[in-house]
Amino acid sequence: MTTSPFAPKNLPTLTSLRGVSLGAVRAGIRHANRLDMMMMRFDAGAHVAGVYTRSLTAAAPILWCRSACDDGEIRALLVNSGNANAYTGTQGMEDVRTLTAQVASEIGCDASQVMICSTGVIGEFLPVPSMMSAIPQLHHHIHADGWDEAARAIMTTDTFPKMATRTCMIAGTKVTIHGIAKGSGMIAPDMATMLGFIVTDASLPAAIMKPLLARYTVKTFNSITVDSDTSTNDAVLMVATGGSRSPAPHSAGDPILDELKEALYDLMKELALLIVKDGEGARKFITYRITGAEDDESARIIGLAIANSPLVKTALAASDPNWGRIIAAVGKAGRWINPDQITLYIGDELITHGGAVVATYNEATAKAHMLQSELLIRVDVGVGEGCADVWGCDLTERYIEINANYRS
Amino acid sequence: MTTSPFAPKNLPTLTSLRGVSLGAVRAGIRHANRLDMMMMRFDAGAHVAGVYTRSLTAAAPILWCRSACDDGEIRALLVNSGNANAYTGTQGMEDVRTLTAQVASEIGCDASQVMICSTGVIGEFLPVPSMMSAIPQLHHHIHADGWDEAARAIMTTDTFPKMATRTCMIAGTKVTIHGIAKGSGMIAPDMATMLGFIVTDASLPAAIMKPLLARYTVKTFNSITVDSDTSTNDAVLMVATGGSRSPAPHSAGDPILDELKEALYDLMKELALLIVKDGEGARKFITYRITGAEDDESARIIGLAIANSPLVKTALAASDPNWGRIIAAVGKAGRWINPDQITLYIGDELITHGGAVVATYNEATAKAHMLQSELLIRVDVGVGEGCADVWGCDLTERYIEINANYRS
Repeated sequence: MTTSPFAPKNLPTLTSLRGVSLGAVRAGIRHANRLDMMMMRFDAGAHVAGVYTRSLTAAAPILWCRSACDDGEIRALLVNSGNANAYTGTQGMEDVRTLTAQVASEIGCDASQVMICSTGVIGEFLPVPSMMSAIPQLHHHIHADGWDEAARAIMTTDTFPKMATRTCMIAGTKVTIHGIAKGSGMIAPDMATMLGFIVTDASLPAAIMKPLLARYTVKTFNSITVDSDTSTNDAVLMVATGGSRSPAPHSAGDPILDELKEALYDLMKELALLIVKDGEGARKFITYRITGAEDDESARIIGLAIANSPLVKTALAASDPNWGRIIAAVGKAGRWINPDQITLYIGDELITHGGAVVATYNEATAKAHMLQSELLIRVDVGVGEGCADVWGCDLTERYIEINANYRS
Repeated sequence: MTTSPFAPKNLPTLTSLRGVSLGAVRAGIRHANRLDMMMMRFDAGAHVAGVYTRSLTAAAPILWCRSACDDGEIRALLVNSGNANAYTGTQGMEDVRTLTAQVASEIGCDASQVMICSTGVIGEFLPVPSMMSAIPQLHHHIHADGWDEAARAIMTTDTFPKMATRTCMIAGTKVTIHGIAKGSGMIAPDMATMLGFIVTDASLPAAIMKPLLARYTVKTFNSITVDSDTSTNDAVLMVATGGSRSPAPHSAGDPILDELKEALYDLMKELALLIVKDGEGARKFITYRITGAEDDESARIIGLAIANSPLVKTALAASDPNWGRIIAAVGKAGRWINPDQITLYIGDELITHGGAVVATYNEATAKAHMLQSELLIRVDVGVGEGCADVWGCDLTERYIEINANYRS
């Protein structure tokens, strides 16, 4: 598969993080000879928080994760690609129990301390025997520096592994945050994302991580779109190993967390943008900056309506400044706008003001901006102070080619 | 442009209808030498009702139609293709006033009795001078048998004209209903449709037509989807000329209308399906039959979620029975379902029951059905008695090609 033109030239190096070892193996889940099963093992004392898909046909591993690790303590995470274990009924849940029990037995913990995520084809049963036989090998293999292989093992149609890292201080103690993610299709609003795994050596209880993760997910993973489809398996997990022995915050509002919050948001945004930049068939990366909405949520919804419009996306693919399609998408979003006060810019070119195209509009300038591979489209909808950035890509023939042939 | 493989082999002949004359001319609105402006002239006593787009950036002609013909009396309808007169601000409304006044002056009626519709590129101003000079010529040209040219003049990316006709009895008097429509992209839920014009020689007041039109629009034009985009210009108008001198009904519930209701619904459904069958780039036509929903509206929403899913549509393009994508679309629709009781059929092949794939499922049989050009996909969501049929098409490279090059 051709690597996305937006793939980072250099992948970041995720160094070892106190309290976690990880790695990946070839379990032959869908294809022979590719890394398709990943494990993270955490030292005792690690805590976890998660946000999950809102799909009403959520996969078995999602149902497990929602109820496992109830006290927030986690000892291991098992992830496979190639098979989503979604819409697999009681057999799917039984398979989750079998696999988590096996991991728990290897590690010596309770199965409820093992999280599991799956991604891939929906509706097929997991090849449990081959996964079971690979687990001991995987457990034997994990090591402190397995981030790159872990990021690769969770890929499906991704054309490059997605990794990000940040460091910051918590009351004088340096902490590190690593994150890996996967996803390049079935990316849409109203879900957690595809898969995102964030690990920090900070000392944080689940009750503090959960609201931070939820808040930043809205502005990062839930503000991107590739194809408007919501997956059955989306999850973002954050684990704090406590390996840095950083001071414990009193609450999510404790000022000692200020730097960590900024670093976490930044890392989540980087991962989210990498997912858009690996959008199936994408040749253009677009930032939609919505202002003047009733509130931030309205701005996000309007931005996603534009970013998801097939007509906008095909115009983008053709570098055609067919701006009327953007206006039409604003109109269909269903949020409060003032149609006579929409201010629309493509790049720095002002297109509309006062309810119609402005006399100064120069299509050639807009076209020149659209020929670039990274675009900025700004829309002010003229009613309030709400604003949001939303990120999307274009829709090309290649998207169809990829998705028509995914299973074959 | 290649004609859709689903184009009817023979177009119906719409014979003359008492009380209306119509025709089309080449006004050079976007392209030279194509029919792009159509007029219908009605005898005094004709009544009109309409349903319109819910877009918040509705076009100037939509704003006009919503307020014109307040008493339900209509004398003329002017329609152009090539330019939507949408997001054109005060200039756009001024142009509507100029054009309707000119038509009114030709015919000798009040401008408020002239309806106007436009379809085409958004954001550009109408070429009013060339339209003005074409109006007298068009008025001179209209005749009783202009249905075919009228249907052609309203086409944009349509590859064939869409026409349908029915006859029925109202209390012993034979009446006829003719309909023409256009639309092949920007077709989506939550709107009236693209453009649909229905004319009958029955005697019906606006107050009776309006609720019938609204009710059947939900089950026809609002149950189809090509690309999930909602246009700024969608409208369905129904005009009753009264030329048949059929008895006047007392109310919309009057039993003398039973046959007419059936005929009207049937005609609207035929036109709606012709729009899907001309879906941009479509090679497959799919009927989604949803049952077991909480209510009919839930069933329609679930059906549209499936029909609009890019992942389902690309799988359809590849004739790949990747049924998990259908389940995922059911899950993202946000309506009440029982995930453990979804019964899914592709053609006659039962795929899921009791929360997972059934042991008897034979992918080859499902694949054989998917290789056909007209498919039936049935989904029972296991919670109630609500049901709906929804119609959609596949998503092919050709859709992108058409929409990337529309303006050029």
